[in-house]
Amino acid sequence: MFGSPARYPDIRYATRFFSFSPVIFLRTKSGQYLVVSPLDLGTARQCARKTRVLSFSELAVPKNSPQPISERMLCLLKKNDVRAVIVPPYFPVAMANLLTKRGIKLAIAEETIFPEREIKTAYEIKYIEIAQKAAIMALRAAVDLIAGSKITRNSLLKIGGKLLTSEAVRDAINKTVRDYNCVCFETIVACGRQAADPHERGAGPLKANQPIVMDIFPMHIESGYWGDLTRTVVRGTPSPELQKMHTAVRAAQKTALSKIRAGVTAETVHNAAVDLFKQRGFVTGKKHGKPAGFIHSTGHGIGLEVHEPPFLGPNKTKLAAGNVVTVEPGLYYPGLAGVRIEDIALVTKTGCRIIEPKNYPFVI
Amino acid sequence: MFGSPARYPDIRYATRFFSFSPVIFLRTKSGQYLVVSPLDLGTARQCARKTRVLSFSELAVPKNSPQPISERMLCLLKKNDVRAVIVPPYFPVAMANLLTKRGIKLAIAEETIFPEREIKTAYEIKYIEIAQKAAIMALRAAVDLIAGSKITRNSLLKIGGKLLTSEAVRDAINKTVRDYNCVCFETIVACGRQAADPHERGAGPLKANQPIVMDIFPMHIESGYWGDLTRTVVRGTPSPELQKMHTAVRAAQKTALSKIRAGVTAETVHNAAVDLFKQRGFVTGKKHGKPAGFIHSTGHGIGLEVHEPPFLGPNKTKLAAGNVVTVEPGLYYPGLAGVRIEDIALVTKTGCRIIEPKNYPFVI
Repeated sequence: MFGSPARYPDIRYATRFFSFSPVIFLRTKSGQYLVVSPLDLGTARQCARKTRVLSFSELAVPKNSPQPISERMLCLLKKNDVRAVIVPPYFPVAMANLLTKRGIKLAIAEETIFPEREIKTAYEIKYIEIAQKAAIMALRAAVDLIAGSKITRNSLLKIGGKLLTSEAVRDAINKTVRDYNCVCFETIVACGRQAADPHERGAGPLKANQPIVMDIFPMHIESGYWGDLTRTVVRGTPSPELQKMHTAVRAAQKTALSKIRAGVTAETVHNAAVDLFKQRGFVTGKKHGKPAGFIHSTGHGIGLEVHEPPFLGPNKTKLAAGNVVTVEPGLYYPGLAGVRIEDIALVTKTGCRIIEPKNYPFVI
Repeated sequence: MFGSPARYPDIRYATRFFSFSPVIFLRTKSGQYLVVSPLDLGTARQCARKTRVLSFSELAVPKNSPQPISERMLCLLKKNDVRAVIVPPYFPVAMANLLTKRGIKLAIAEETIFPEREIKTAYEIKYIEIAQKAAIMALRAAVDLIAGSKITRNSLLKIGGKLLTSEAVRDAINKTVRDYNCVCFETIVACGRQAADPHERGAGPLKANQPIVMDIFPMHIESGYWGDLTRTVVRGTPSPELQKMHTAVRAAQKTALSKIRAGVTAETVHNAAVDLFKQRGFVTGKKHGKPAGFIHSTGHGIGLEVHEPPFLGPNKTKLAAGNVVTVEPGLYYPGLAGVRIEDIALVTKTGCRIIEPKNYPFVI
């Protein structure tokens, strides 16, 4: 592999070394190698477990070579008598071409290069828990803020004489996760019609009696592991239709969670949510030319990437003990509203365990 | 291009769209295209400037294809009658192979695909300034903390009855940048011998009369632009040798900065620092088998990446107006100490302008 551990979580996963500078990674039958800038030698040796750490300067490169890094990789391969390698699908094409030209046999991994990344270790779960705890505390701060607001005559929310906005709630969320050494990049606080677009970040004054979707995904800065949490709340009184939507989404999450255990296929979990929405009369399809209903899959794996395999959609991937997945059914009706509820679950042999479970009332 | 804008700054640069999910990017003579997940369609259309935004679902893919994304890219190329493309060196090899097999001519860009990224626009400079301002304020917090400490009998630093550590100062730095909507990933607070390794993050109690190197590089979360600032301070009294080192580093930075203007080569700037150290008797070479002296280059470009071209080392790259570069000479003597001073400068036709200039005393 080649690239910076900041960009390529596979390298971070294999070595626990983090840097914004590119490195070379090689694993052979006899061990693994990490080649770093001479400046990173000290820190890499401190971090990288079970790894021989070398400096770029230890690998020879012909003078005036247009691809010095590729030459260094070639040198590393020759030193270790490696003539054939497996590379990830994202391996850089320029490097691949040079290696092939120089007689190295290149095979490309079909999907992921480290399928074991889907099975989380105790070390990884610990950091996912920290990130999820940060999300929980941030949600609490947001709910407290919204609950403390007053409803104005024109059904907006006011706090301390000022209108309460998506921006203000997002700010409270982003500030709270920092106390847990986490950072949020794209927190969603979307109200009413905005909530009908599942990835809309939300802007402007929040409205009473309308759903407020809050999707919080903090990354733990030191370790790189993510949390992911969504709740939908209403300040005031939801319409009967909105109440029904929320009850259905909650039930869909419950039934999806109840299906999860090692050995079950992703579609078994996903279809449980799909079927529940159908039974309750929530149709998925086009409405006014736009996708409406339950328009995304039920969840995704989470770890060093916020979205990673396994994906809980209409596919036959089998879940395994140690998978950590989000379970996040939602309903979206363009021009009207959206509702989503999301938790993360650790798959076990007999079922699953929600990481940092937390109940919040829908109406606050 | 293919990948997530979070991973590939070139895509973020070209579109101003940010996401952790992969996208396809294509620029033709008639315009540019961004293909995103159906869920990201709304937000991508809000962000992406002068770009036709499509959803993956609009591009056909043969049933059961093992490489659906590559097929979608192929479909986009065919729709636009594109038969030959230039891809960046990091383009994924698996995708490159499929495109080539299906008759697309692939040329690989020799270095960067957007050399114009080296010339910063007013929009970019604005965000670099915000990030650098965050670094300045964080440095102030750190200096205040160290200056407020008491020197113990065994030459450690104490504050509020507790020993002042690298960790505590780093924490103060990382907390301060948050107030400017920035995040730090790897702040360096390294004292004494630790400071002799330029990338050592630093740990444990800080010492009086020893150099404390603080290297602060915050990223502005919303825009993705970076700042980068280093100062070295001593609490107490530096030895005459240490004082001489610091004076030399400051002079090296001054002379390097004085050489910067559009049209000048990187090595002109770098060699100015190298020569100054030589003149003052600071030898660069091996000491006890370890690199010692001025062991790194003078600086690097900064923008959407913390290290990016142009690189201010022994190379003939010509600087251009609009480059933003760090200027960060340092001296490192393993087992003894290290000193580094770093600012960032905007290259102009006639010279350069330091972004957020700030003087701090060496001895505090």
